[in-house]
Amino acid sequence: MKVAGKHYQTIWLDRENSKVFFIDQALLPFEFSIKSTSQHEDLINAIKTMQVRGAPVIGITGALALLLGMSTDSSDENLNHLSQEIIKARPTAVNLAWAVNSMSEEIQKISQERRLGFAWNYAEKLIQNDMQCNHQIGVHGGQLIIDNNYNNILTHCNAGWLATVDHGTALSPIFEAFRNNQNIHVWVDETRPRNQGLLTCWELMNEKIPYTLIVDNAGGLLMMEKKVDAVIVGADRISINGHVCNKIGTYLKALAAKANNIPFYVAAPSSTIDINFKDEINFDIENRSTDEILKINGLDENKQLSVVSFSEFNAHNPAFDITPNHLISGIITEKGIFKPEVLKAVYA
Amino acid sequence: MKVAGKHYQTIWLDRENSKVFFIDQALLPFEFSIKSTSQHEDLINAIKTMQVRGAPVIGITGALALLLGMSTDSSDENLNHLSQEIIKARPTAVNLAWAVNSMSEEIQKISQERRLGFAWNYAEKLIQNDMQCNHQIGVHGGQLIIDNNYNNILTHCNAGWLATVDHGTALSPIFEAFRNNQNIHVWVDETRPRNQGLLTCWELMNEKIPYTLIVDNAGGLLMMEKKVDAVIVGADRISINGHVCNKIGTYLKALAAKANNIPFYVAAPSSTIDINFKDEINFDIENRSTDEILKINGLDENKQLSVVSFSEFNAHNPAFDITPNHLISGIITEKGIFKPEVLKAVYA
Repeated sequence: MKVAGKHYQTIWLDRENSKVFFIDQALLPFEFSIKSTSQHEDLINAIKTMQVRGAPVIGITGALALLLGMSTDSSDENLNHLSQEIIKARPTAVNLAWAVNSMSEEIQKISQERRLGFAWNYAEKLIQNDMQCNHQIGVHGGQLIIDNNYNNILTHCNAGWLATVDHGTALSPIFEAFRNNQNIHVWVDETRPRNQGLLTCWELMNEKIPYTLIVDNAGGLLMMEKKVDAVIVGADRISINGHVCNKIGTYLKALAAKANNIPFYVAAPSSTIDINFKDEINFDIENRSTDEILKINGLDENKQLSVVSFSEFNAHNPAFDITPNHLISGIITEKGIFKPEVLKAVYA
Repeated sequence: MKVAGKHYQTIWLDRENSKVFFIDQALLPFEFSIKSTSQHEDLINAIKTMQVRGAPVIGITGALALLLGMSTDSSDENLNHLSQEIIKARPTAVNLAWAVNSMSEEIQKISQERRLGFAWNYAEKLIQNDMQCNHQIGVHGGQLIIDNNYNNILTHCNAGWLATVDHGTALSPIFEAFRNNQNIHVWVDETRPRNQGLLTCWELMNEKIPYTLIVDNAGGLLMMEKKVDAVIVGADRISINGHVCNKIGTYLKALAAKANNIPFYVAAPSSTIDINFKDEINFDIENRSTDEILKINGLDENKQLSVVSFSEFNAHNPAFDITPNHLISGIITEKGIFKPEVLKAVYA
């Protein structure tokens, strides 16, 4: 998608110079900065510190970390070691484990002298597939928006193109519908503690799509006031029964949507569906540093990126919650739109 | 209640010097600062800028503004003019209109030469009544906590002693139960955009009651995980049918409590009940400045109070929402605990 009129991906390869380029999202929306590296440690660190973020792009970045890490040693041993190290960076992200393990397995099937070339091809294909997949989510979801004439759509967190290589997941239907002249306005949840709503605003602003930033507390009132036609969110992990693990606070919006008869959609690639995740809340939710609550980034009076902190209060910072399947109207994947209860028949 | 071991009220009178003293809550929890004034304009400004905040203490502050404003002119005309000016400061706060109008009416019943002395007595009594009333809320609600052995209580916004002259509304039962040796831990919603949860943390810390600050998004997960035994919030306005207007986001927590079979209580003085407010959402919600979302106070690296801002995004900032009566287990007033549906029989 576009930044100041110019097309970008969040992450891309420079095969000639054995480098990976990525947008440093920890600085957005305050600074637009491109980083490059040939070291896998930098990409692991980028995942940990959320310089790259969003389930799909975390998976891709993990795969690219494996690519860079194996450039000096493509032995099975090193591939297994690297995979473990990379997956630890964000334990809840199923796409990360999926992307890294699949790539490592494929590489280990072939002879060692051909592995590096194969890995570059594989990585390039992952990137292409991500873009095609997200675009297809947009095609299916965009048609849904147009068919139902949804004008006011609420979204939580950032599941836009910044969370993928391009197009996004929850925002892909919005971009697609807007391209097809649908009249759209997006209510953007701020999404504390990391305020990813600011990224969503920044994306929408760059694409000239009308949007309004609201605090996470406001969505219930807006739904009660009939100012929301549909909710579309992304997902970090979807159970085969259609329960959705997504950014903390998603569940509250799903409850409010249900109470006000507003459709609640989840948009995610099929790779987000985890056939091993069956039970509603019986899995570990990642608890992140309380600094994310107690320290906030912004621009100071000199327009410099700065941080302020609250007092050293006791805090607790779970990163995700679970939205039970009965609150979900449909799951939009690259293959189509499915009711949660039919997911098993399609994907298991 | 106590600050660093010493007892304080949020606001008090110095009749000898015709002054009002108050804690400047806009600086809390970063700075503890006492302001004093003999000018009613300063108190109106304190209400507008939330140097004083919370429904009950806004009412008291309005009454004290009337007291200071009439010291040079106690005519009916000036009293009516002052009342209008004061009430405009926070249009949604029913306690403000109630306190100011009642006081003005009472004053106008008596001869002009006796009015100022009467007004000081009236103001002193308002302050005493507020403290007694909130203490009674604590007695009823504290017993509820002890009888049901609620250990983990979630609260939204600040309805602590800082929102009243003393004791608080939603926190009064917690203070009272804790004084009676109930084992209590409080989950404190951050309460964006103004982060009043920090005030709640600061109160609880000063009273040595265990607490944990969470983002507004987290409560749903905690309830699903059975880590919340009860929710207690305050109210800015309660309809005679038991619908509750309170800080934006309250409704989302009520929905989550209902979905997880967790009791949801509202604690407020009877003066919060508005017999003219009948319909669920058919009244104006105050929209406040979007600066409250886009600019955040905190301490900079030199531990100085500082502000950072997000980019100039479009934003919308409704201050309150409505929690429908069917989501409310009981309303705790100074007179006892009532089901929403019996409120009319008790109060109309």
